[in-house]
Amino acid sequence: MALSLGELAVRFGCELRGDPATRIEQAGTLSAGAGVIGFVASTAYRDDLKRTQVSAVVLDARLAEYSPVAALISPNPHATFARIAALLHVRPSAPPGIHPSAVVDAAAQIDPSAHIGPYCIVGAGAQVGPRVQVGPHCIIGAEASLAADVQLVARVTLGPGVRIAERCILHPGVVVGSDGFGYAREGPAWVKVPQLGSVRVGQDVEIGSNTTIDRGALGDTVIEEGVKLDNQIQIAHNVVVGAHTAIAACVGIAGSTRIGKRCMIGGGTGINGHISIGDDIIIAGFGMITRSLEKPGMYSSVIPVEEARTWRRIVGRLKRIDSMAARVTALEGAAGIAEPPQQEDNND
Amino acid sequence: MALSLGELAVRFGCELRGDPATRIEQAGTLSAGAGVIGFVASTAYRDDLKRTQVSAVVLDARLAEYSPVAALISPNPHATFARIAALLHVRPSAPPGIHPSAVVDAAAQIDPSAHIGPYCIVGAGAQVGPRVQVGPHCIIGAEASLAADVQLVARVTLGPGVRIAERCILHPGVVVGSDGFGYAREGPAWVKVPQLGSVRVGQDVEIGSNTTIDRGALGDTVIEEGVKLDNQIQIAHNVVVGAHTAIAACVGIAGSTRIGKRCMIGGGTGINGHISIGDDIIIAGFGMITRSLEKPGMYSSVIPVEEARTWRRIVGRLKRIDSMAARVTALEGAAGIAEPPQQEDNND
Amino acid sequence: MALSLGELAVRFGCELRGDPATRIEQAGTLSAGAGVIGFVASTAYRDDLKRTQVSAVVLDARLAEYSPVAALISPNPHATFARIAALLHVRPSAPPGIHPSAVVDAAAQIDPSAHIGPYCIVGAGAQVGPRVQVGPHCIIGAEASLAADVQLVARVTLGPGVRIAERCILHPGVVVGSDGFGYAREGPAWVKVPQLGSVRVGQDVEIGSNTTIDRGALGDTVIEEGVKLDNQIQIAHNVVVGAHTAIAACVGIAGSTRIGKRCMIGGGTGINGHISIGDDIIIAGFGMITRSLEKPGMYSSVIPVEEARTWRRIVGRLKRIDSMAARVTALEGAAGIAEPPQQEDNND
Repeated sequence: MALSLGELAVRFGCELRGDPATRIEQAGTLSAGAGVIGFVASTAYRDDLKRTQVSAVVLDARLAEYSPVAALISPNPHATFARIAALLHVRPSAPPGIHPSAVVDAAAQIDPSAHIGPYCIVGAGAQVGPRVQVGPHCIIGAEASLAADVQLVARVTLGPGVRIAERCILHPGVVVGSDGFGYAREGPAWVKVPQLGSVRVGQDVEIGSNTTIDRGALGDTVIEEGVKLDNQIQIAHNVVVGAHTAIAACVGIAGSTRIGKRCMIGGGTGINGHISIGDDIIIAGFGMITRSLEKPGMYSSVIPVEEARTWRRIVGRLKRIDSMAARVTALEGAAGIAEPPQQEDNND
Repeated sequence: MALSLGELAVRFGCELRGDPATRIEQAGTLSAGAGVIGFVASTAYRDDLKRTQVSAVVLDARLAEYSPVAALISPNPHATFARIAALLHVRPSAPPGIHPSAVVDAAAQIDPSAHIGPYCIVGAGAQVGPRVQVGPHCIIGAEASLAADVQLVARVTLGPGVRIAERCILHPGVVVGSDGFGYAREGPAWVKVPQLGSVRVGQDVEIGSNTTIDRGALGDTVIEEGVKLDNQIQIAHNVVVGAHTAIAACVGIAGSTRIGKRCMIGGGTGINGHISIGDDIIIAGFGMITRSLEKPGMYSSVIPVEEARTWRRIVGRLKRIDSMAARVTALEGAAGIAEPPQQEDNND
Repeated sequence: MALSLGELAVRFGCELRGDPATRIEQAGTLSAGAGVIGFVASTAYRDDLKRTQVSAVVLDARLAEYSPVAALISPNPHATFARIAALLHVRPSAPPGIHPSAVVDAAAQIDPSAHIGPYCIVGAGAQVGPRVQVGPHCIIGAEASLAADVQLVARVTLGPGVRIAERCILHPGVVVGSDGFGYAREGPAWVKVPQLGSVRVGQDVEIGSNTTIDRGALGDTVIEEGVKLDNQIQIAHNVVVGAHTAIAACVGIAGSTRIGKRCMIGGGTGINGHISIGDDIIIAGFGMITRSLEKPGMYSSVIPVEEARTWRRIVGRLKRIDSMAARVTALEGAAGIAEPPQQEDNND
């Protein structure tokens, strides 16, 4: 789809500097050429901006004077650019209707405007809402429901009773509503505890490839509206993830933990079970969270790599840090200096 | 299914306190209401117990006096509750027979009581035993075998020759028997080493969503009976996991490592290849295991997060710990104190 | 397939010590028996070699004198053994042709020598080259291309426009070309940034089960030739992985990072976004890489587990290391020793 810059300015409410007739065909980087619209969201890219040969850029008022080309002025250039890109690069929708190879239970309700792709399975009592797009090879369990405009890209598995709210996007390999990891110990062996809850996913949630979300043991696992989950995340039974929280790839969250709203959790982070993370908390990548955190702010436990030989020495010293402390105490005794009172140690 | 409390007491060998005619319809939490049976396994929930309005609870003799409702007395309330819940909430079995869309090799042997779901693939020489439930979209490789009462929930992939023993449950996205990561270096490039072994899985094993278990390079990868694997675990070629070991989500185990029996391995743990972990070892979450461990007990290397600013200072000090040790040695020299003999440093 | 040792010697250019008529039926370990060929690549296995009862071994000249059986001499016994094993254990190819259940768009181009398995989906404009093997349940997006001799083992998902070069092998559950994790913040919510790039995978790449590789945001994500990726790896949008780099399981690489050629990255490692790792860099397992690394060599940040009680003391001391440093400084002041100048602290 190609549009004029004037049409974009009107549609997204931007001030336009330059020729409104400029034709825009696609979104791209500042290093692209004619027909492309780019964006600049930081002064760090000012020099790239000065050299750009794209047809137009989206930027904020501070940067406008440096643009050698037409510009759309926006207080949030990244978000405006995202919307323009979505408009220019509309993904084709599959047509309404059920592919003849789909196995749809007679007791499922499929809105006539929905698309059900080849080789999908839809269980008894499942509900598929208006304009839902179900790509190939998806499995929708009995009594599961997909609200309007949900997209299952392909090969998504939803267990029985899972509820997905409006406009969610689920990517290939996602499994929502498989059994949680629940056992009772009995002698050396484990007795499986039936996982009787399900999963509720709020509006506008996106779930990345091969992410897994387990059904609750008794109550439900809950992902609130606007949450964004990257690939290969594991969310255990009865977790609650608060609205608009964004979680990067490879994070694992153990059972019954509550994550607040608007949190940002870096990749590879692990979060213990049965704890509570407050609102507006940021975790740097590779964090290990063993206790509840209430105070908004940024937390970390990352240890950046060193050359292996150096690191071995450091770890050796760390493992003997207790004896180093004893030596310092002995020196203080010899020097007649009192050891300072010990700070509270809340590591466990 | 609804049962009387008296029937449950008889069936599970519990002492009953209360009216044996009490109707029990479902399992639930202590905060549920009439018709529900709950459980209490710890005195920590005594206050919840005192307030409960469920119809009955499972608990041990110590807690019985606090129950305001009918009670089943069990020495292991959690396990008894799990069995009652499984009875009350039986998952429907799919009917015996092969879905017409399944592609079953003529040389596969399928027991007539087994169910093979839509779009399954069953290879030549595969064997599927009595009452096996194979959900939709499963792939069973040539010469693979499923013993009696195995459940493949959906979308499970089994490579050639994989053997799954009685009553195992495999969840969606599981891959058992893909090639291990084996290469010989040749100049800058890698030559693939054929992975000629397979995978043997013992009785009563459960494998969570998107977990992967590689086939052996020459011998087999082995998961012994009663092992419980959570979601997104990676088990490399020729690993052996001992009976009744439970492994939480996101654990990775490198090639040829042996894990003992009855171990409990916390989520996010990584285990090096070619080492041996003894029986009855517990690893706290996020552990890094680089060497063999023999002695039963609990091990850890977790470092809980701190506020990021504080943590940066700590890491900076840690990276300079060697110079701090040198300063302490210098102080000891100045004070005429001998440095204590160095403890053995076995970190590598 | 069975071959004589003489045939193997000629085919792989090895010096033969022993009877060229020796029949070799399969590859195996040194503990196997007649008809088997084994290998020894290290003097550590010299005693096993002395006791072996296999029919022949592949080894280097240094070890030849210890072999009690026929031997093929090779400067790289592991690579030679790998090639012999591949010859002895050829995996059966599926026949050319398109399974009748495959859903192939009329505008896709499938080479007549390629195999497309049951229940595959091939989108419009996709290209499948000579001798390609596409196992069951694969999804090949619109405009995607598979060059000659590619193998998709089963259940592989390729997004639109993904290009896979010659001889790549992709294992079950792999997803290449799903959307990257890209959002613009707007108030408390996130606006999805369309992911307009794709993924290019070079020749001879192997990708393990359930690994995910996201499409680029604007440009492409690139995996260069000869790269080997283990299971459950996550590669974010716009990452570049250099030729012949090998990455073990459970590694996560954040967006726009460049990894050099011939690197070896240990399992469970995490790599931040927007950084650069040079050529010939080795990362020990569980490394946390937060900054660019240029200098070839081995890097680590692993902390091996300790008994939990001991570890708790160590972490407690570590969290108070700042106060220990202050105490050392105070002692130096009392002793009239100057604190050494602080080393550069480049942790962030």
